[in-house]
Amino acid sequence: MPRPNKILAITGGVGGAKLALGLAKILDPEQILFAVNVGDDFEHLGLHISPDIDSLTYALAEQNNQELGWGRAGETWQFIETLGSLGGEDWFRLGDKDLALHMRRRQLLDAGATLSQATATICQHMGIQHSVVPISDDPIRTEVHSEQGDLAFQHYFVRERCEPAVSGFSFKGMETAGLNPVIGTYLQDCDGIIICPSNPFVSVAPVIEVAGFLEAAAHIPTVAVSPIVAGTAIKGPAAKMMQELNIPATALAVAQHYQNRYPTLLNGFVIDETDRHSLNEFNLPSVATQSVMRSLDDRIALAQRCLAFFDELPA
Amino acid sequence: MPRPNKILAITGGVGGAKLALGLAKILDPEQILFAVNVGDDFEHLGLHISPDIDSLTYALAEQNNQELGWGRAGETWQFIETLGSLGGEDWFRLGDKDLALHMRRRQLLDAGATLSQATATICQHMGIQHSVVPISDDPIRTEVHSEQGDLAFQHYFVRERCEPAVSGFSFKGMETAGLNPVIGTYLQDCDGIIICPSNPFVSVAPVIEVAGFLEAAAHIPTVAVSPIVAGTAIKGPAAKMMQELNIPATALAVAQHYQNRYPTLLNGFVIDETDRHSLNEFNLPSVATQSVMRSLDDRIALAQRCLAFFDELPA
Repeated sequence: MPRPNKILAITGGVGGAKLALGLAKILDPEQILFAVNVGDDFEHLGLHISPDIDSLTYALAEQNNQELGWGRAGETWQFIETLGSLGGEDWFRLGDKDLALHMRRRQLLDAGATLSQATATICQHMGIQHSVVPISDDPIRTEVHSEQGDLAFQHYFVRERCEPAVSGFSFKGMETAGLNPVIGTYLQDCDGIIICPSNPFVSVAPVIEVAGFLEAAAHIPTVAVSPIVAGTAIKGPAAKMMQELNIPATALAVAQHYQNRYPTLLNGFVIDETDRHSLNEFNLPSVATQSVMRSLDDRIALAQRCLAFFDELPA
Repeated sequence: MPRPNKILAITGGVGGAKLALGLAKILDPEQILFAVNVGDDFEHLGLHISPDIDSLTYALAEQNNQELGWGRAGETWQFIETLGSLGGEDWFRLGDKDLALHMRRRQLLDAGATLSQATATICQHMGIQHSVVPISDDPIRTEVHSEQGDLAFQHYFVRERCEPAVSGFSFKGMETAGLNPVIGTYLQDCDGIIICPSNPFVSVAPVIEVAGFLEAAAHIPTVAVSPIVAGTAIKGPAAKMMQELNIPATALAVAQHYQNRYPTLLNGFVIDETDRHSLNEFNLPSVATQSVMRSLDDRIALAQRCLAFFDELPA
């Protein structure tokens, strides 16, 4: 297959955002659109918090906090510490700078902007030229079914630190959520989809399960990058979730999960060099490469490898 | 007259809060109630901001910012600077720690608390034992009539830096605002009122003009401390306002303003030592003392002088 001219990249949290930055460094803004998970979004302290949009925004603006691995660079914590001292809820660690973004989003939404429009305004002020687009402007809220009952995603992820064993997931609002029309239009002449290394269950699923996405994507070459490397997730609970769901925590099992659940989705799969030994077990075109992104060069190299992979897919 | 056993102190902003701290240092919590102006309150960024309540709260908690002369000690500005960079409104300089208080108040109000209840909860968390009570739980909003038209108070005070010449004031909501029942009850056996050195037009007026206050206060010995010293206000626009209203910017004119406008209000007036030369011009019992409060000792000394002054009032 030829190398695509117009890519849609699906991203969830911090891991996906790393590859997104690599892609943004080598593709012009008109060559790629980032379709972002909103299942992590929640209302908190009267704010609308969109963790995955923000992880991507901070990464593309090169304002992500490299020491923490999440949040914004140069962050301070005066607000949340003071809020705690006043008896307020402080389990969700809102940094002073990060809070400004949520407050600005709240204002824009209150003034009638869609989440897409609010995101575009914020990206513009942060100097981001590439398109960051929520998969839907309608609310989709991931619920984690766990041994502690059903938990709103951020309660599971942050408040409970991913400790409760999970048994499944559901996406409130998914039945009625509409595919973002910007993405619907983009998919009409998009010729390549890259699923960044994000959690298949809680980052990628709530994107690709939005009504209309899989049908539109069925004819578009799609490659996914494994978020599992050598049996563990570089970041986040993907490997732990797989164990609790009685799925081996392997790159192969991630590919099989996608293939079983979304038979029309994948055309190729990218795994890490350390998992090269398993390449012959995949029943779709697969490549092994250095996928752990420590430096900007790593991000760019993986982006280039993903793009080159499209050339190698059978027509 | 005997020294009062139960004082009500009226406070506006930072100047009034200084004397309030002096009073709190020498009177037990059951001996004094602070009745606070809410005319400065406004809704901003979805928050409920109560500048005068907060100035008093920070002063009583000894958390006021002494370098700035307003706001909270140890303040940082990451939030507001980031908000500005994102295109948000940044003319009202919300510090990172101060913001937490406003957010906590928003949460408490949203959960059904009155402003009094929210204030009590915040004071409790800040270790304040004395009662900080808004004059009303109903909205009262000061409007400044100026050469630029009518301005909401914070627009005049902060956004326009008090620059427009004023021609008068009105208090939206005053017609329907109810006297805080806590204050109504307190006044029944209160035997002394101290008007702290706050702006007569925009701090004291919106307190004493709440329906029922002047009637209840008429039989209670009341002394006011001049906010004007040697022709200027220690802080804030009181002197500038007086000039614009064609009133001499003197302590005497403040007393006369109160006497003309509220004939039953004052029983005594406290001026600064530097204005002692004008004492014989007052037509009510008046004393001169060191009223500029730089240190905690100054605050306590002025509080003691005010209390002693009640002894000297004619029966």
